[in-house]
Amino acid sequence: MLITDWLQRSAEHSPVRIAMEDIATGERLDYAALDRRVGRIAWALRERYRFQPGDRIAILAQNGFAHLELLFACARAGLILVPLNWRLAPAELRQIVHDCQPSLLIYETDFAAAAISATDGMNCILMSLGDPQGYEAMHADAAGSVAAMMPRRDDDLWMLLYTSGTTGQPKGVMQTFGMVYVNAVNTLISGKVLAGDVFLNVLPFFHTGGLNLYTLPVLMTGGTVIVEWRFDPAITLARLSQDVVSMFAVPAIYLTLANHPDFAAARFPRLRNLSVGGAPIPPAIGEAFATKGLVVAPSYGMTEAGPTIFASDPLTAARKPLSVGKPVGAALIRLVDRDGHEIHGTGRGELQLAGPVVTPGYWNRTAATHEAIKDGWLSTGDVAIRDDDGDIFIVDRLKDMFISGGENVYPAEVENFLYDLPGIAEAAVIGVSDSRWGEVGLAVVVAKSGVTIEPDRLRMVCREHLAAYKVPQHVRVVHALPRTPSGKVEKHKLRDQLLTKKQSDEEGTLR
Amino acid sequence: MLITDWLQRSAEHSPVRIAMEDIATGERLDYAALDRRVGRIAWALRERYRFQPGDRIAILAQNGFAHLELLFACARAGLILVPLNWRLAPAELRQIVHDCQPSLLIYETDFAAAAISATDGMNCILMSLGDPQGYEAMHADAAGSVAAMMPRRDDDLWMLLYTSGTTGQPKGVMQTFGMVYVNAVNTLISGKVLAGDVFLNVLPFFHTGGLNLYTLPVLMTGGTVIVEWRFDPAITLARLSQDVVSMFAVPAIYLTLANHPDFAAARFPRLRNLSVGGAPIPPAIGEAFATKGLVVAPSYGMTEAGPTIFASDPLTAARKPLSVGKPVGAALIRLVDRDGHEIHGTGRGELQLAGPVVTPGYWNRTAATHEAIKDGWLSTGDVAIRDDDGDIFIVDRLKDMFISGGENVYPAEVENFLYDLPGIAEAAVIGVSDSRWGEVGLAVVVAKSGVTIEPDRLRMVCREHLAAYKVPQHVRVVHALPRTPSGKVEKHKLRDQLLTKKQSDEEGTLR
Repeated sequence: MLITDWLQRSAEHSPVRIAMEDIATGERLDYAALDRRVGRIAWALRERYRFQPGDRIAILAQNGFAHLELLFACARAGLILVPLNWRLAPAELRQIVHDCQPSLLIYETDFAAAAISATDGMNCILMSLGDPQGYEAMHADAAGSVAAMMPRRDDDLWMLLYTSGTTGQPKGVMQTFGMVYVNAVNTLISGKVLAGDVFLNVLPFFHTGGLNLYTLPVLMTGGTVIVEWRFDPAITLARLSQDVVSMFAVPAIYLTLANHPDFAAARFPRLRNLSVGGAPIPPAIGEAFATKGLVVAPSYGMTEAGPTIFASDPLTAARKPLSVGKPVGAALIRLVDRDGHEIHGTGRGELQLAGPVVTPGYWNRTAATHEAIKDGWLSTGDVAIRDDDGDIFIVDRLKDMFISGGENVYPAEVENFLYDLPGIAEAAVIGVSDSRWGEVGLAVVVAKSGVTIEPDRLRMVCREHLAAYKVPQHVRVVHALPRTPSGKVEKHKLRDQLLTKKQSDEEGTLR
Repeated sequence: MLITDWLQRSAEHSPVRIAMEDIATGERLDYAALDRRVGRIAWALRERYRFQPGDRIAILAQNGFAHLELLFACARAGLILVPLNWRLAPAELRQIVHDCQPSLLIYETDFAAAAISATDGMNCILMSLGDPQGYEAMHADAAGSVAAMMPRRDDDLWMLLYTSGTTGQPKGVMQTFGMVYVNAVNTLISGKVLAGDVFLNVLPFFHTGGLNLYTLPVLMTGGTVIVEWRFDPAITLARLSQDVVSMFAVPAIYLTLANHPDFAAARFPRLRNLSVGGAPIPPAIGEAFATKGLVVAPSYGMTEAGPTIFASDPLTAARKPLSVGKPVGAALIRLVDRDGHEIHGTGRGELQLAGPVVTPGYWNRTAATHEAIKDGWLSTGDVAIRDDDGDIFIVDRLKDMFISGGENVYPAEVENFLYDLPGIAEAAVIGVSDSRWGEVGLAVVVAKSGVTIEPDRLRMVCREHLAAYKVPQHVRVVHALPRTPSGKVEKHKLRDQLLTKKQSDEEGTLR
């Protein structure tokens, strides 16, 4: 099916309506201006730089208008946008850039060194967002030019969103126009979005949550997206008290908002849809929002599917605050047992997803794609329970993964790094609960003979090479790791030992 | 892109929510019951009757639950539904049935004779809706069985909706799942439909307006569709005063409602979206609704595209009551001059449509499809003006067609019939304005030598063979028709002559 250019249509319909507003600077761009800028940028990418359909354009920047401009410009020019995670360490970034081989990398000045290092030796044009000779010059040079949308179909790729994985290798999740469109429809219905609604986005644009959850659906209906450069609770609370209708966030954001001194007096006259992902919201925080008449509804999704797969409604959420409810319109789900047989009715099993909400796979990784998606069913690695009403509870993870502040952390990736350090003989990383981030990493390491490991120093080394959310907040030095006869670390046993220990020890010993 | 089964998803989500309600009997079917019935009917069609994917199933009935049950059952069984126009005369119906060759025709008892006559000599199973051995027996026999949805994709056909045409030959407009889905999204956004809304449908289900405008979108979001068997103004007004949020109708319906004695005292507490198609609403009627705080927003669409192509919003409609506004999200439009060149900016030209909202074409009619759709652009045959704001006004028709009570009437079809009558030498039909129906037919005929034509008798003969809305309400007998040198009837000249005449003559002379 042919894809139409949402942005152009919104610009025709509501030229002077605000498409994007920068919460910090108050800068606003109406649909006519955004459409004009996008037309010029697309023209420059196609005509000036001669990028060919299917080429990748990467952006390494904190949230700003440029992400969305480039996204629509890529649609028009037939290019694929790769929004890069600026929280990654240079070596991590380099791995991703080498995987997707962008023809152009647009970077924020603060990330210049990372951009240069990541593309070292590659045939990739670097362009600065801040430099007057950079991104803005490309736009200005194209004044008067405009690119119409190339004919694009459902199955064409629009973006690559990188996630790590159990193997510790980053994988680019292919996002097609069709997948984005169907997800938008699911969000419109489940999130009760009305044309022209105002949405406040606090998630990074390198996340599917930041782009796909509400931002693109709201732009599709001619609404306003408020862009936060960096989450600031005071500014966010002030804006939520005005005209904002919808917000999606991870628990840490709700926690920070509810604990802020301005929260008690705040009123949210237009706020209608609050939802949370990554983990359920702590009960006390849910209650704090309930005093404002608001229910924070749990939801569930992932980069590989949706991300709107489950979106509980306020009624269900009030009754079952830990349930993600039922799947949205175009998402198919099933629970399967260890043998891969479907569990009908109530029961517990691995959650699998299918339908037009699922990615066609990972960029350049046929084997990983076939591993993840079998007969159209995507393995989530999450264990779910279905109750009598058909409501779903996410209860466990099969994948060796934990979520810290909304970011997936794959222990294998951190362990690989630790093993590369001199002095470490064995390493295992597990997620432990944390009141602020939901979960944080705990590294259990065995020192090489004659070596003393300093936890603080180990964390410092990690911080230099890993994204902050991957750095183990707790380090514990032990004599040996529990292993199976075949040599595999028994993480469940490790976890049991440590948690028992933790309760009996002083807390400090775990640091 | 794979299509998911909306109905099943709504049944999982909201099993006890009402999907359909019969306004006359108060009968209601919740989503669980509707889903169960559909699963059984689909099973029967596939397993009992052994219909093969792509086979056509026709229904000849006034609006009822069966249309929607069959529509979803056809989706599940991979069949194509053909909702037949019961207002057609037997010969007209026969032509359509012979064109689409249904394997099964389900008919309402009142239309038994028409169903038998239309399928005479064909290999088509007839099944009665009312007979206990018919439709309900098929459903009951399948108790306990359930058919899951066959994998269906965007491009697969879901229904054929027949329209006449300038040639007078009925043509089956192919409606794909993708077209219906994209139209639903356009309706959700432009019509501000929220999950669970109540919609009152007064249009026949053999019309794209009856099925696609709101009915399917509302069922997709788990809302309630109120089904009218036959339009009754008192019952409709009573229901609109309760929980109805949206209604779409043609001007004649609004006229009848506004002129009804109950209208003055009526209040419409939840009514939010009123829209009109086929023609603009008469100003007095618009004002009557304005006293209730309601704007009847003009819209535009056709069986071949949308039908949600233009849907004016209340603000624009209040300012420009004759404009259909701007096209909805996924609809592409252009105006072209006589030479087929696009007109940019303000101007006047033929309206053409493109994008995923357009039909792939006419069933079994490649030539007619190529005639109507060139390079992806569908000719509407309507002339439109675009103003400075980009708002569109439909001002004229290039096609020799008029609209009577929301039904397209193609003069060629009526003329063909008149020419077949003994005693008529020449015939031309044009649409003239009518306060109730918008337009009605005026037949101008030349008698064969020695024959006297009785207008009343001619109308009576027409009523026996043509749908009522096609029967010329006015007949005028003349000595000759104005013709071009090549022999073509000059309808514009005819119209001018008659309208001048009409004003000077007594009104009766035109009858």
